[in-house]
Amino acid sequence: MLSYRWELRHTVASVVLFLVLATSGRAHFTADSDPLPSWNEGAARSAVISFVTDAVKEGGSGYIAPEDRVAVFDMDGTLATEKPFPGAVLPIIADVKTAVGKHPELANEPGIAALLKGDIAAVEATGEAGIAQIAAAAIDGRSVDEVTSGYVKEVRTLKSPRYGVPYTQLAYRPMRELLGYLEANGFQTWICSGSPIAYTRALSKEVFGIPPERVIGTSLATRVEVRDGRVVLAYTGKVDKVVDRDGKPPAIHLAIGRRPVFVGGNVGGFGDVAMMRYAMDRGGPAFALLINHDDAAREAAYPDKGGDSLAAASRYHFRVVSMRDDWKNVFDPTVTARPPSP
Amino acid sequence: MLSYRWELRHTVASVVLFLVLATSGRAHFTADSDPLPSWNEGAARSAVISFVTDAVKEGGSGYIAPEDRVAVFDMDGTLATEKPFPGAVLPIIADVKTAVGKHPELANEPGIAALLKGDIAAVEATGEAGIAQIAAAAIDGRSVDEVTSGYVKEVRTLKSPRYGVPYTQLAYRPMRELLGYLEANGFQTWICSGSPIAYTRALSKEVFGIPPERVIGTSLATRVEVRDGRVVLAYTGKVDKVVDRDGKPPAIHLAIGRRPVFVGGNVGGFGDVAMMRYAMDRGGPAFALLINHDDAAREAAYPDKGGDSLAAASRYHFRVVSMRDDWKNVFDPTVTARPPSP
Repeated sequence: MLSYRWELRHTVASVVLFLVLATSGRAHFTADSDPLPSWNEGAARSAVISFVTDAVKEGGSGYIAPEDRVAVFDMDGTLATEKPFPGAVLPIIADVKTAVGKHPELANEPGIAALLKGDIAAVEATGEAGIAQIAAAAIDGRSVDEVTSGYVKEVRTLKSPRYGVPYTQLAYRPMRELLGYLEANGFQTWICSGSPIAYTRALSKEVFGIPPERVIGTSLATRVEVRDGRVVLAYTGKVDKVVDRDGKPPAIHLAIGRRPVFVGGNVGGFGDVAMMRYAMDRGGPAFALLINHDDAAREAAYPDKGGDSLAAASRYHFRVVSMRDDWKNVFDPTVTARPPSP
Repeated sequence: MLSYRWELRHTVASVVLFLVLATSGRAHFTADSDPLPSWNEGAARSAVISFVTDAVKEGGSGYIAPEDRVAVFDMDGTLATEKPFPGAVLPIIADVKTAVGKHPELANEPGIAALLKGDIAAVEATGEAGIAQIAAAAIDGRSVDEVTSGYVKEVRTLKSPRYGVPYTQLAYRPMRELLGYLEANGFQTWICSGSPIAYTRALSKEVFGIPPERVIGTSLATRVEVRDGRVVLAYTGKVDKVVDRDGKPPAIHLAIGRRPVFVGGNVGGFGDVAMMRYAMDRGGPAFALLINHDDAAREAAYPDKGGDSLAAASRYHFRVVSMRDDWKNVFDPTVTARPPSP
């Protein structure tokens, strides 16, 4: 019971602790230094470096014009850890109950129903759509500014029970290096995440070097209201659009207006395969990087059901990155995992 | 009849000739040159220059941090002429009829109903929602790439009956100067238009210097399909979201994630007042510029009903720009209007 309350206290008040962030800045590189020091030598690292080297070589067959150098990454499980799925949704049960009191039909939404039972595994199983429903209900009526500033305050102090550090330090170091390497070579880097954009973009600049206008994600509806004589945007309690799987390419198109040439995703939910294929089929040089969560010791091992993402990688020529074999470090060296829960 | 067919031929195949573009690049400025040569001396020009000068002066009360320098402009009637509303929608009647054949309920949509009657004034009166319905029906089933490339080809050759030049030369010269001036001072410039983004962004970089990822607008739904073994995005025939009036602040928030500090709009439909108030209420230095269409000789005169936008300008401290008095040139000097139609 004490431990349960401890967890509540330390994971308070945000739906999205699966949004995991890291505070340290990104690496800068000179032409001579190693752009990817946290990557082991191997096929994955070599393929990335070849692709980028060719992309900037004018006249070569792999050349990509600067305006086409668009790189899009999933966030949870691709740029930062998403495991274990946090019990952090529990503390917002009170907010969700208030919303259900006002709109009883919400209790039928799968994510909300699972949350009201306190069944975290069932919440996770409802996917991005279920999470979005929970988030929308929890922040119903609050202004956009309130939600952002409240979230930023909370996420800085919360610590991951597994790693013992704030969630803001749990971005993957090799991926931060990759983002920096791409930017240094004229790529515009974007996030496209199934998590609610309300949270995803709050610290994206600080953590990943990606400004809020380059974050795409599941959106919760807002409307214009006048409060205390001032125009504000307030959340309406409704989900606007869930951005996952086949929803990712349309969301990328709406935000960017062209196909990415580089996409990063991860195994675990089949959520990124559509946008990876979308990039690969663009009709020009393209790179799709699929992170395989095969490192139970340092992070987590969770292939997706039936190995669908790995099968797609083989079929559509995605480059699989083994966390265990291809990454020298997963996080900053000061961060180590406690033994995984059974 | 001949004249009618001439118009058909010369305005073929695109719903959105109210999307008006100009091919020439934007001005570049040194510190010593006049940043706004097409603006007459006067209160509007002075206010713009004061605001921008203060915005970059660190330590001053008008200072705006670089990451907050977000400027958003309506397009039609603000960056380029939207009058006369073109008869260019007529040629796509065949496409719309095909769509109605497949989905008879479409004939009840006000914009489509007006189009099928050939009543252009009635089409215009249905506003952004009506236009969006027409566009969605006309391009139903086509891929995003087909629609973009087809549109780009057409818009380069079409000529405005009133000005006798391609629509791509009908951006407002003073506004192109303003965009350049803002960019030169570290502002990020965006378009937020009620017109379908499918067209708006096709030439935004070439004409306004604004890349496609910084164009917000009414969206037509797309979905992932596999055609000839290749992933494409295809239009579904449905409108995704109409971005106008109170819909503009939520769309800006979704795309950018923060409030603009500078917003430009125009009289004529009350479409921009919500986003102008949204900027003015941000809680820091802000500028809202409202273009008054009062220049029948060089362009057009069309106050909105009851003068609502001008009343809002007075109440909420928008800066009104008189096209007649504040602009030395409206278009590039080679472009002159024929006498307006009665």
